[in-house]
Amino acid sequence: MEYELYYWPSIQGRGEFVRLALEDAGADYVDVARRKDGMARMMRLLESERVARPPFAPPFLRAGKLVIAQTPNILQFLGPRLGLVPKDEASRLWAHQLQLTIADFATEGHNVHHPIAVGLYYEQQKPAALKAAPWFIKERIRKYLGHFEAVAARNPSGNAYLVGRKHSYADLSMFQMLEWLGYAFPRAMKRISPAYPRLAGLRERVAARPRLAQYLASKRRLPFNEDDLFRRYPELDR
Amino acid sequence: MEYELYYWPSIQGRGEFVRLALEDAGADYVDVARRKDGMARMMRLLESERVARPPFAPPFLRAGKLVIAQTPNILQFLGPRLGLVPKDEASRLWAHQLQLTIADFATEGHNVHHPIAVGLYYEQQKPAALKAAPWFIKERIRKYLGHFEAVAARNPSGNAYLVGRKHSYADLSMFQMLEWLGYAFPRAMKRISPAYPRLAGLRERVAARPRLAQYLASKRRLPFNEDDLFRRYPELDR
Repeated sequence: MEYELYYWPSIQGRGEFVRLALEDAGADYVDVARRKDGMARMMRLLESERVARPPFAPPFLRAGKLVIAQTPNILQFLGPRLGLVPKDEASRLWAHQLQLTIADFATEGHNVHHPIAVGLYYEQQKPAALKAAPWFIKERIRKYLGHFEAVAARNPSGNAYLVGRKHSYADLSMFQMLEWLGYAFPRAMKRISPAYPRLAGLRERVAARPRLAQYLASKRRLPFNEDDLFRRYPELDR
Repeated sequence: MEYELYYWPSIQGRGEFVRLALEDAGADYVDVARRKDGMARMMRLLESERVARPPFAPPFLRAGKLVIAQTPNILQFLGPRLGLVPKDEASRLWAHQLQLTIADFATEGHNVHHPIAVGLYYEQQKPAALKAAPWFIKERIRKYLGHFEAVAARNPSGNAYLVGRKHSYADLSMFQMLEWLGYAFPRAMKRISPAYPRLAGLRERVAARPRLAQYLASKRRLPFNEDDLFRRYPELDR
């Protein structure tokens, strides 16, 4: 099946969690909004009153007649179809649970530079962001990474990945989180990272997967930038 | 099956979305942390290094050997078992998608009084909260309620509910959101609510469901309070 992914064409953003899954599986997909007239198609789907089950926001995925939104929902749909999650119900619930926690982590990361309102520019809420950043770094990054390190350590199938013996879509998303954190908070992460050796191993193993290595080196992988969920503002990385 | 729900015993919080589903279905369940020694049991499960698949935070549900965390994940697990979602895959994905959007809405509501850090008291971040609240009221409440009003209006099975012909767990959660908004922002909601007649109807229909009406009038329904996700701070309701 050819999948259609709809997401903002200029950032990695939440869409990247889906792109990584599609790319790793070598799936047949179109990144619609990055094609000619694609943005207009995406906005029509978002705004049309004839869509019976409308997405609240990108990303969303079209798979045949289905239009599925919310990143973790898209991934739990794709997971079994792309071989990116074990088949038993317990493992699928578990991978989804981890993905939902990654989604919360990403949202909190965005809040650091947008604590007051998503509708204001960073520069308009910088004093609050300067207060939010040290809390995020000191309390939240450690709490989340500590959780995922424990998840890998306790994985009964070995501690190479989060869910089973093999990589899952949750591992690909964890890789993305670590990439973002390293980009946005290089000073803090240099200090913090050594406490999470299993996550460091996971990150290397995911980056070395042949299709992903090719993707990450290609033009399809958008560069990090200051419109994304995670941004490099040196004043927030103390 | 007897379900065990683990959640903070003094607030409605995210656990309330699960409580409403269990109560509406007349399910056999224990609200563990509200029993004697229950908090200690919950904390042991959260902190024990022997739990192979640990929750990141409450709420979590024990169902036989499974321990499931993340509210929308719990609800998608319970939905088909409690008759609170249609059986076809498309409807289950759709109900889950709506629940994930409700979860985002609830998180943004909490951010209003905690814009800088969850680890600080409201009083320590009040200046930022005073800036965040008008944006939440003016932009975000309207965007979310507009979305859910459209979802009800476009429901091909009639516009009494969000998903199908009958109520689903997403409707119960939407009811809870409307209750919280009415509690936290009574002045704003009085002004805003008339624009969403289908959601007003949904709220009444849910509140009138016999088991829920009984629950809402019982001591099992915890009162709204200022430790909850939504809080009544009059200075934030301008």
